[in-house]
Amino acid sequence: MGQAVKAYERLAQRFERMAVLGEASSMLGWDASVMMPAGGSAARGDQFAVLASLSHEMLIAPGVADDLAEAQSAPLADAWQARNLALMQRAYLRATALPTALVEAMARANTSCEKIWREARKQSDFSMVSAALTEVVALTREQAQALSPVLQLSPYDCLMDGFQPGIKAEDVTPVFKAYRAFLDEALPKVEAMQARKPKALDLQGPFAADQQEALCRALSLRAGLEADHSRLDRSTHPFCGGIPTDVRITTRYDESNFAKSLLGVMHETGHALYERGLPAAWTRQPVGSAAGMAAHESQSLIVEMQACRSDAWLGWLSQELARYFPQEGAALAPANLALLWRRVERGFIRVDADEMTYPAHVMMRFELEQRLFSGELQVSDLPEQWNKALHDLLGITPPDDAHGVLQDIHWYNGLFGYFPSYTLGAMAAAQLMQAARQADPLIDEAMARGELAPLLAWLRQQVHSKASFYGFNDLLRSATGKPLTPEDFTAHLTRRYLQD
Amino acid sequence: MGQAVKAYERLAQRFERMAVLGEASSMLGWDASVMMPAGGSAARGDQFAVLASLSHEMLIAPGVADDLAEAQSAPLADAWQARNLALMQRAYLRATALPTALVEAMARANTSCEKIWREARKQSDFSMVSAALTEVVALTREQAQALSPVLQLSPYDCLMDGFQPGIKAEDVTPVFKAYRAFLDEALPKVEAMQARKPKALDLQGPFAADQQEALCRALSLRAGLEADHSRLDRSTHPFCGGIPTDVRITTRYDESNFAKSLLGVMHETGHALYERGLPAAWTRQPVGSAAGMAAHESQSLIVEMQACRSDAWLGWLSQELARYFPQEGAALAPANLALLWRRVERGFIRVDADEMTYPAHVMMRFELEQRLFSGELQVSDLPEQWNKALHDLLGITPPDDAHGVLQDIHWYNGLFGYFPSYTLGAMAAAQLMQAARQADPLIDEAMARGELAPLLAWLRQQVHSKASFYGFNDLLRSATGKPLTPEDFTAHLTRRYLQD
Repeated sequence: MGQAVKAYERLAQRFERMAVLGEASSMLGWDASVMMPAGGSAARGDQFAVLASLSHEMLIAPGVADDLAEAQSAPLADAWQARNLALMQRAYLRATALPTALVEAMARANTSCEKIWREARKQSDFSMVSAALTEVVALTREQAQALSPVLQLSPYDCLMDGFQPGIKAEDVTPVFKAYRAFLDEALPKVEAMQARKPKALDLQGPFAADQQEALCRALSLRAGLEADHSRLDRSTHPFCGGIPTDVRITTRYDESNFAKSLLGVMHETGHALYERGLPAAWTRQPVGSAAGMAAHESQSLIVEMQACRSDAWLGWLSQELARYFPQEGAALAPANLALLWRRVERGFIRVDADEMTYPAHVMMRFELEQRLFSGELQVSDLPEQWNKALHDLLGITPPDDAHGVLQDIHWYNGLFGYFPSYTLGAMAAAQLMQAARQADPLIDEAMARGELAPLLAWLRQQVHSKASFYGFNDLLRSATGKPLTPEDFTAHLTRRYLQD
Repeated sequence: MGQAVKAYERLAQRFERMAVLGEASSMLGWDASVMMPAGGSAARGDQFAVLASLSHEMLIAPGVADDLAEAQSAPLADAWQARNLALMQRAYLRATALPTALVEAMARANTSCEKIWREARKQSDFSMVSAALTEVVALTREQAQALSPVLQLSPYDCLMDGFQPGIKAEDVTPVFKAYRAFLDEALPKVEAMQARKPKALDLQGPFAADQQEALCRALSLRAGLEADHSRLDRSTHPFCGGIPTDVRITTRYDESNFAKSLLGVMHETGHALYERGLPAAWTRQPVGSAAGMAAHESQSLIVEMQACRSDAWLGWLSQELARYFPQEGAALAPANLALLWRRVERGFIRVDADEMTYPAHVMMRFELEQRLFSGELQVSDLPEQWNKALHDLLGITPPDDAHGVLQDIHWYNGLFGYFPSYTLGAMAAAQLMQAARQADPLIDEAMARGELAPLLAWLRQQVHSKASFYGFNDLLRSATGKPLTPEDFTAHLTRRYLQD
């Protein structure tokens, strides 16, 4: 075995060990949200910190740089190994580019700012958190500037790259611009069409949480999640956690309405199926991990939005629901479910937005972030600029900052460059769905029987099994023959909302 | 700060970090038994292995020996620090005394033997596992012999010391001998008295698992466990896991009888209260941990056997049970509960034994283990010697090896020197209860109201808060004025079983 191969093997072992620590941390994170009594939180914090710090020490240990150089000195056996090595290198560069003092200052500032934000949002008073956010932005700028020469990306792209490698602001800007043009034209039309439709019948309820849970679990398993490799539990904030062989989905139940838990669980099931489909041969290696946040969101949205809000699946679901909630009668008819669950409405809150107006919320954040990081905007400008941007896009103005600039945790926790992932994911989902349908015309037919197996098979082959072999745009190219485009998404919206 | 103090501080930080990894492992262990889907087990095994190996690496790292020597070079600030340092030294010696090859061979042999044992027990065929157990015994002997000069204990005492420091075989032998004399005389008398008593009324049931769970949780909280720092869940094998600020009790429910879950949960509650009472100032340090297996068992048994099978507590419980299970009527009368739950009976199976005959099962294992490690016995002698020993003690002969030498997992998993802990715990529980009653005469009065608070207060002060400051016998001396003695236990049994 050559020196380069040996160095690569040492690195692979090191990253595997780091990944195992990450797995432990992930399971403990699930426990903290789902099981842990309040009294366990201080110790749990220490457990996370020690696991993270051991993993970080392993990554920046003496010898890693030498092994990286050595491994790169000769060509590796195959392209996956080469990509794996490149991702190791990137992880090492990201970890070593930042001075420890900066990392610690960011952790402190983010924690502190997030805490102040909770109170500020409650009181709807941006001025309370303005200073703390200024500190967070200053440190994040410092971080982006330190990463920029190392990653050879613009500072803002360095932030985006932390969440979704393989796509830059310059790739996103024209896509968002095209979407904006579509939205300006389509939204009034959709609203006019909706106004002509009959009023939806409300669901009556109540829907017992246990019954909702049984329904959600059954739907999740029917979508392809294996009972032996997954759990469904309850938490305040729904998420998909765990590890590829043991994925843990959570949701919450509103006994007056099962729609949120049902569609929420299908969303998380999409995330879970992606993790389940990652290639076992590359587990715990950088190249074997999910491709990034936007890629992950594409998988949750292809299940929730593309599949489970389709006429085909709703038709099947309608009968299923009638078995669980027979007293609801006509409210469970497919057309009524479509009226209830596919309503387009201009609103202030991103997380409540429908799939057509959601990108508007993301686009304005994307633009504000870039202006903030270019220095064009100050933190103190944000509330006014926020309201202006929302008005420009949707013609509405938040009544207060709680419904405006204070609504999302992201910025107050130091997450800049994250928001685009949501809409990149939504667009990628439409693009992948279109390609999947062309490749296998039986996909829709199966959905009409409540079966996602043909869709899942295509996703496994084209997306899941590729893991991080490609960056975002290359993954789309490989799966759909083209990089990210808004066209399949707008075509999907046109079919769903502009055709009778 | 002197060099010695600095070295001590470095060690304290190292042991704290190791303890945090142990906490992570403990929580993941709970999850594996209670929550994890089967498909997660392979990855979980790797998580345990990596956490254990990182902790081991920290313990044997270069520099630890120097720090230990440096810290010992000057007197420390207080006796707790000195004891902590001594325990660090002991952990280091135990970890470094054994060659890695031996540790790995033991792990392999134990795992393999345990697996074979499961099948051998099923088929009641000792010959199937004889060779594997011979290998386990040979490696355990090697381990004991390697530890012996380092710990300055006899080989067998080295094994005992791994589970319960601070007591040796020579301390235990006369105690067990005295108990044997008591048992030989008392057991026939108890049986004669029982024969004259009325037949117990059976509980009718069924008892829904959810209702049993609510009852068990309520009793556990009433015993002093805090809801914010504990959970009660279900697992095949009941245990108390977690960490001191987040203890996790499990049990299983038999819907035909609530006694096992109720008394089982009170047993685990005793363990949990001990963990909860460990001194927060010394958390994650060796001196701040529980004093050992026998000490732990004393705390579970003082709750389960001393308190919860007492006339006082059963009198209160009887009324409580009537609220949960009113249809059971007279079967819930205190005297009937005593008939049901305090029946003495010669049997083959240790885990099913009553508190009077249980020590017989332990004593024979203790003797067989010593003869095995002195070389007097070979593994192939065990089935015959087992049956002979049980017959000598209880006058009964197991019908087959499944009810004899194959019944317990311990030996087949390399656990030798563990069994004495059960009976040392039972005796210590009686001894502590006697001292507690003398110190606070209100303990019994409170128990008659279902309150364990006065007993718990005494245990907190005399046992829990001492953590590992003392070895087993010194802990008893400190709390009760004398080392381990069988007399309080035999007096307890005499009161409970030989007085009308």
